[in-house]
Amino acid sequence: MIHIALLGFGVVGSGTAEVLTKNRSLIEKHSGKQIEIKYILDLRDFPDHPLGNRVVHDFNLILNDPEISVVAEMMGGSHPAYEFTKAALAAGKHVVTSNKEVVANFGVELLDVAREHGVNYLFEASVGGGIPIIRPLQNDFAPDNILSVSGILNGTTNYILSKMKNDGAEFADALRQAREKGYAEADPTADIEGLDAARKIVILCALAFGVLIPPSEIEVEGITKITSDQVAVAESLGCAVKLIGHTERIGDRVLAQVCPHLVPASNPIHHVEDVFNGILVNSDPLGKTFFYGAGAGKLPTAGAIVADILNATSSDLVLPVWKRAEKNEIAGSRERNVRRAFVLPGCAKCAERAKPVFGFEQYVVQEGAFAFLSRPMTGEEVENALRELGKEPVWTLPVLD
Amino acid sequence: MIHIALLGFGVVGSGTAEVLTKNRSLIEKHSGKQIEIKYILDLRDFPDHPLGNRVVHDFNLILNDPEISVVAEMMGGSHPAYEFTKAALAAGKHVVTSNKEVVANFGVELLDVAREHGVNYLFEASVGGGIPIIRPLQNDFAPDNILSVSGILNGTTNYILSKMKNDGAEFADALRQAREKGYAEADPTADIEGLDAARKIVILCALAFGVLIPPSEIEVEGITKITSDQVAVAESLGCAVKLIGHTERIGDRVLAQVCPHLVPASNPIHHVEDVFNGILVNSDPLGKTFFYGAGAGKLPTAGAIVADILNATSSDLVLPVWKRAEKNEIAGSRERNVRRAFVLPGCAKCAERAKPVFGFEQYVVQEGAFAFLSRPMTGEEVENALRELGKEPVWTLPVLD
Repeated sequence: MIHIALLGFGVVGSGTAEVLTKNRSLIEKHSGKQIEIKYILDLRDFPDHPLGNRVVHDFNLILNDPEISVVAEMMGGSHPAYEFTKAALAAGKHVVTSNKEVVANFGVELLDVAREHGVNYLFEASVGGGIPIIRPLQNDFAPDNILSVSGILNGTTNYILSKMKNDGAEFADALRQAREKGYAEADPTADIEGLDAARKIVILCALAFGVLIPPSEIEVEGITKITSDQVAVAESLGCAVKLIGHTERIGDRVLAQVCPHLVPASNPIHHVEDVFNGILVNSDPLGKTFFYGAGAGKLPTAGAIVADILNATSSDLVLPVWKRAEKNEIAGSRERNVRRAFVLPGCAKCAERAKPVFGFEQYVVQEGAFAFLSRPMTGEEVENALRELGKEPVWTLPVLD
Repeated sequence: MIHIALLGFGVVGSGTAEVLTKNRSLIEKHSGKQIEIKYILDLRDFPDHPLGNRVVHDFNLILNDPEISVVAEMMGGSHPAYEFTKAALAAGKHVVTSNKEVVANFGVELLDVAREHGVNYLFEASVGGGIPIIRPLQNDFAPDNILSVSGILNGTTNYILSKMKNDGAEFADALRQAREKGYAEADPTADIEGLDAARKIVILCALAFGVLIPPSEIEVEGITKITSDQVAVAESLGCAVKLIGHTERIGDRVLAQVCPHLVPASNPIHHVEDVFNGILVNSDPLGKTFFYGAGAGKLPTAGAIVADILNATSSDLVLPVWKRAEKNEIAGSRERNVRRAFVLPGCAKCAERAKPVFGFEQYVVQEGAFAFLSRPMTGEEVENALRELGKEPVWTLPVLD
């Protein structure tokens, strides 16, 4: 019997209790394990809940109970989740979590504490909700040299962009619909400004490259400036506008960023709609591997928590070793050699002049402007090319091939 | 140091040696483990290969060497791969394999032997090449009630169907191109008749539902009868024709089958092109989860073998318990309640008459016929509906929603 404590009885916490209860016999049949929720830590009381009698308000009850072998931390926010996690690990308890903020900001230290005390710190539910991605990255990609990881990591913004693409909606209207459907919070800032995706991409970066960059130190651009016109131009170029978290190695440094990209139909990410997430790993020797599924939502995220609980008691897990990124290890997006979408002002003659400079053949005519996808270029090459043509872009976004 | 033996030095065997050599330090950095190839079993000699001096022709050398803890079986075909696997497991050695034929036909017994001797039998590379699917199904889906698993499991046939869809090629011409590119063998029967996919879907069925159905006992239809006309009709209905392996629970029985399906654009499987594979799992609570990647090919498959070797020495793995399917546990495709594509002979008047019977609104006019996607129907309901209209279909295929 694995005795566990849930920290937080909000959406994910109550969802975890629901999955553990509803799928109890299936879980035992599949894993050979039985899980018992001994404590639920929350500031609130839940007198009408079947597990209401397990609710406690004092973390020390959990910390000091030797019977508790696994703690599921689903509190949201950095504090006191970070402190509770560290204390639990130091007390010889495994911790599993959906808390991307804690993993992104304190992951180096917490993994060290876990390793030091011979316990596990798992966070499948922190990125991509129910999609198995953390465990495969550590397990199935262990033989691999990972070149890049890119993905749609936030359901709210993808829902908005889907509405803009499929219904021709403007951003503000699509955001309103997202709120009405419960896909966006009352304050959707963290989602639409890309901060949520930023926390997730630094976790993926650390898993891929062993280096954890603080989310505050990466370039982050959300979708608040995306117009229905840009979405239409993208479509005419065979692409969809998606908010992408992207990380790759550039030389011996590492880039992690969040910004809207144009994604061609040949990339499976192009076809990820609504609140789904999708993550593409480019590695040698597996090649391109893509994981897609419910990136958020109470029950899928709870499913990932339960899978982690089942894995937590394994003594064979090799915890990743992360180090904090030094400033000179962090690459900027300017160094990225990538195809780029441009809308430049000018007429057909300008487009013809631009062709050899930006390395394209096809372009789409706009009113007083033209749109195209360039050859792969670094930021410096872009600056030189624009200078050569004497033009400033109406807009430009990277292409995710 | 993990001392291993490779059984078979063909495409996958030599690929495995290549990955282990080229990514040696990465593998050690990621996993903390070092792998040494001590023996390579093959009938042939490889005097010019750097590892040529490890080649042996006598399996007993491997069997009787206590230093060998993991055997990678990549021989192809059932015999003597089955016998060698069984002997190795009984001798207390872990076995990892890409051999879908052995897993599909002897999986129940081999897993029992492994369990009995406290060793692991792993087969990530047997389905979907490099795509992590076997391990996630056992690990990440342990909390889940799996409802169905469906996918493109064969690259050769998907390449052919992609050519037919994107280039308008006829089957024979697309097959010729596949051969020229090395995507189809000299004798492509196992691929184009669906036998390869059949072996893989019974493995996925066993992982999902605990019941192994012999590949010879499931309904299998390949792509040899698919015409460019059918592909065009599918496109007009918003679908792509794909060869799908599908397994689901029907009541307390299990269905596994292989046949061409019409796949709508809303299903991520629709967008899997060329030699890529893609597998969609429908489960509670994760919902729809999709895995896509290089389903075949020397190096991706070798990558999966190496990942299995790294996992093989774990003492915590819970091997799946499979039982042989009894006849009364196996459902037939006729019982499947699924939307179906039809082309029925007749004019617009007939189409109107057919609407309430088959539950559709839109249809596409053909010469002397009409095409539509029905409501979900069982085989029996289809028979009744056709009888009611007094029609026989020109053709009909299931729809994979």
